[in-house]
Amino acid sequence: MRPVSIHTGAWRYPGAFPDANFSFGHLRDFARRLEAAKFDAFFMADHLAVLNMPVDALKRSHTVTSFEPFTLLSALAGATERIGLVATASTTFDEPYHIARRFASLDHISAGRAGWNIVTTANPDAALNFGYESQMDHDARYVRAREFYDVVTGLWDSFADDAFVRDVDKGIYFDPARMHVLDHKGPSLSVRGPLNIARPVQGWPVIVQAGSSEPGRQLAAETAEVIFAATGSLEIGKRFYADIKQRMHKIGRDPGSLKILPAAFVVVGDTMEQARERRALLDGLVHYESGIGSLNSMLDYDVSGFDPDGPLPEIPETNAGKSQRERLVDLARAGNLTIRQLAQKAGSYAGLAFVGTPASIADEMEQWLVEEGSDGFNVMFPWLPGGLDDFVDRVVPELQRRGIFRKEYEGSTLRDHLGLARPANRFFEDGQK
Amino acid sequence: MRPVSIHTGAWRYPGAFPDANFSFGHLRDFARRLEAAKFDAFFMADHLAVLNMPVDALKRSHTVTSFEPFTLLSALAGATERIGLVATASTTFDEPYHIARRFASLDHISAGRAGWNIVTTANPDAALNFGYESQMDHDARYVRAREFYDVVTGLWDSFADDAFVRDVDKGIYFDPARMHVLDHKGPSLSVRGPLNIARPVQGWPVIVQAGSSEPGRQLAAETAEVIFAATGSLEIGKRFYADIKQRMHKIGRDPGSLKILPAAFVVVGDTMEQARERRALLDGLVHYESGIGSLNSMLDYDVSGFDPDGPLPEIPETNAGKSQRERLVDLARAGNLTIRQLAQKAGSYAGLAFVGTPASIADEMEQWLVEEGSDGFNVMFPWLPGGLDDFVDRVVPELQRRGIFRKEYEGSTLRDHLGLARPANRFFEDGQK
Repeated sequence: MRPVSIHTGAWRYPGAFPDANFSFGHLRDFARRLEAAKFDAFFMADHLAVLNMPVDALKRSHTVTSFEPFTLLSALAGATERIGLVATASTTFDEPYHIARRFASLDHISAGRAGWNIVTTANPDAALNFGYESQMDHDARYVRAREFYDVVTGLWDSFADDAFVRDVDKGIYFDPARMHVLDHKGPSLSVRGPLNIARPVQGWPVIVQAGSSEPGRQLAAETAEVIFAATGSLEIGKRFYADIKQRMHKIGRDPGSLKILPAAFVVVGDTMEQARERRALLDGLVHYESGIGSLNSMLDYDVSGFDPDGPLPEIPETNAGKSQRERLVDLARAGNLTIRQLAQKAGSYAGLAFVGTPASIADEMEQWLVEEGSDGFNVMFPWLPGGLDDFVDRVVPELQRRGIFRKEYEGSTLRDHLGLARPANRFFEDGQK
Repeated sequence: MRPVSIHTGAWRYPGAFPDANFSFGHLRDFARRLEAAKFDAFFMADHLAVLNMPVDALKRSHTVTSFEPFTLLSALAGATERIGLVATASTTFDEPYHIARRFASLDHISAGRAGWNIVTTANPDAALNFGYESQMDHDARYVRAREFYDVVTGLWDSFADDAFVRDVDKGIYFDPARMHVLDHKGPSLSVRGPLNIARPVQGWPVIVQAGSSEPGRQLAAETAEVIFAATGSLEIGKRFYADIKQRMHKIGRDPGSLKILPAAFVVVGDTMEQARERRALLDGLVHYESGIGSLNSMLDYDVSGFDPDGPLPEIPETNAGKSQRERLVDLARAGNLTIRQLAQKAGSYAGLAFVGTPASIADEMEQWLVEEGSDGFNVMFPWLPGGLDDFVDRVVPELQRRGIFRKEYEGSTLRDHLGLARPANRFFEDGQK
């Protein structure tokens, strides 16, 4: 969810809730529907600034504002029972002690359903909201991210799982021998610890990443347990999948301990034709001003001065996230698209989409799984609630019928849902739950 | 709640839940009980480090760990309907953009029930968890806090209340003329804005403070809408009340726009004797190691090398919070207490306590209200759930019978409960809801 649909026309679709991203009631209902459909998790992406696009584009998109994801996910923890809760938090503009505490708290409060999507924050405008005049260099952000991850996971291991004895008679609340003081002093961060909360239910909340640049892939291969990949086609997806699993093999990580879940935009119809008509209707609701704004933002480069009906010029490297830019440039080159055509795709949605009947969508998903393009999907709904209802009511039963999606939750934690092991405490050999 | 009772013996009291501060289920039930009793708000205090006391003291107290308050309060927003939700957040170790966003989000998600307890973080160990070698100077923390408040409230005013028009036909989501870019550049903070969320339901979440030092009082008089005062007796309370209201008068603020709510520890019995016995039983559950640890922490000075049965030595000024230290020194001087006696009080609870029958407690509370010692109370429960149940089941009906406490919520927001006006947007004259 970003904040409810990534598509800037979504709020205008017939029957959509225009205020869905402002309404906790709507979002709670969406989460409960997904829980009833046995989804692994509810994921909310994030931005640390109003999107950097001209105001004439901005004013047309519902993506300008949303609830802060961690607040929303915590509120959903109090309103759901089983579904995982994955929130984005930035290693560039936050403190590891805060992040470790919040995700540990969410994991306790939700009884083991928390996941942390680690981002380094690509939007260059975010720096201006946090006291900086310009954004930290792309590679430097990833160096800090790696150290940040080490500190956060080290803080989660502050207490052995059996540290809290709560011996009422003797008056001993915890065993100090089962507490570790991290005392981290590194190039980017100094954090003493210990964390002032017990070890999370899951040991560590599930570690999620989405970067696809070279340092992003390497960080993911070393640390991630889920990747929200942005892979536009099955061929690209298979190459990405093989690359990540090979990187894991090289450093001695079990490839099964990381799940690759490409973002997939789903539009369901009774017929192929109806599904395509729905997609076309939705795309048609994106104003050109909004499309060109999205395109400039995703490229981190202003192309509005070029001929809209001419080709995309050379796009220079910038400090922003690389994956979106590269994907769009590839798309433009491959299809000989004009700037206008690319803007339409950027403002609507330019990535992987399954547009079809419940059977055709299930066919495509199954093919991705069988051919090792992915381990599952990060499903994105085209408009809410209709697009979500269509998927839950019609595609999920088809996937269940084929035996490639669960009919009931088998465990209670997000790790259980994803088939991920509970990490050992690096400071205490025993004391596992 | 801190994390469930401030009293370090609370978890050992007969019938208490030893794990209450680790259990969202228990905390949710407490919040719902308080909501049924028509409390204004649920408040969770905070520490950004394990408390700075020797491990032999630490291991005996349930206060070593708790849920991060903002996570808890957000989860409670999803599990309650009317009660206010007040969380502590630090101006010294957090970023105004994060704080503004989170509290705005909580205010939207809870339909106008959020409050922010502004603290500058007195615990010197917190600095070590956030990359600093020592704590920022006390007065410098308050200078930053004032600027931080200006930025956060400015960010909350980023959009006029009527900015989000969501005109589906025209494709206009918001009116850019009703958006303000803060562009703050001050001595401590640079924050561009705008905030990426609509103005909070309450305009601003309710501003709470608890500092009682000279800069703390002045900051409160200028900015606070609620003060959680730590006033040990009615005489001190009346002086504090008059001082704050006079400071407000001097700067032209309506004294009714700030509510002074002293912390009050309540122990209920069928008879005065039974109430005192309960208090004594509870205090007796505090180990000396725990008491001296609490005392050193509250004084920010190690007195464990002095004769436990001798008087308190001179305590030097430090960088930590002043209110607790001054209160304890006053208490020791006034009562000629030994270090051992003072440690017992520090480890149990040394502040204002109402120990008696429902009628005697109601009498005392009424006297405070009538004699302008306070506008209400920040009620602290001695152990959970029993101490909370006693207050809710027995004292609240007595207060209601006397007409000094509501029987039903009259409004829906925390501002409604407290009788506080919705602040105007400083950048837009019209557009009030």
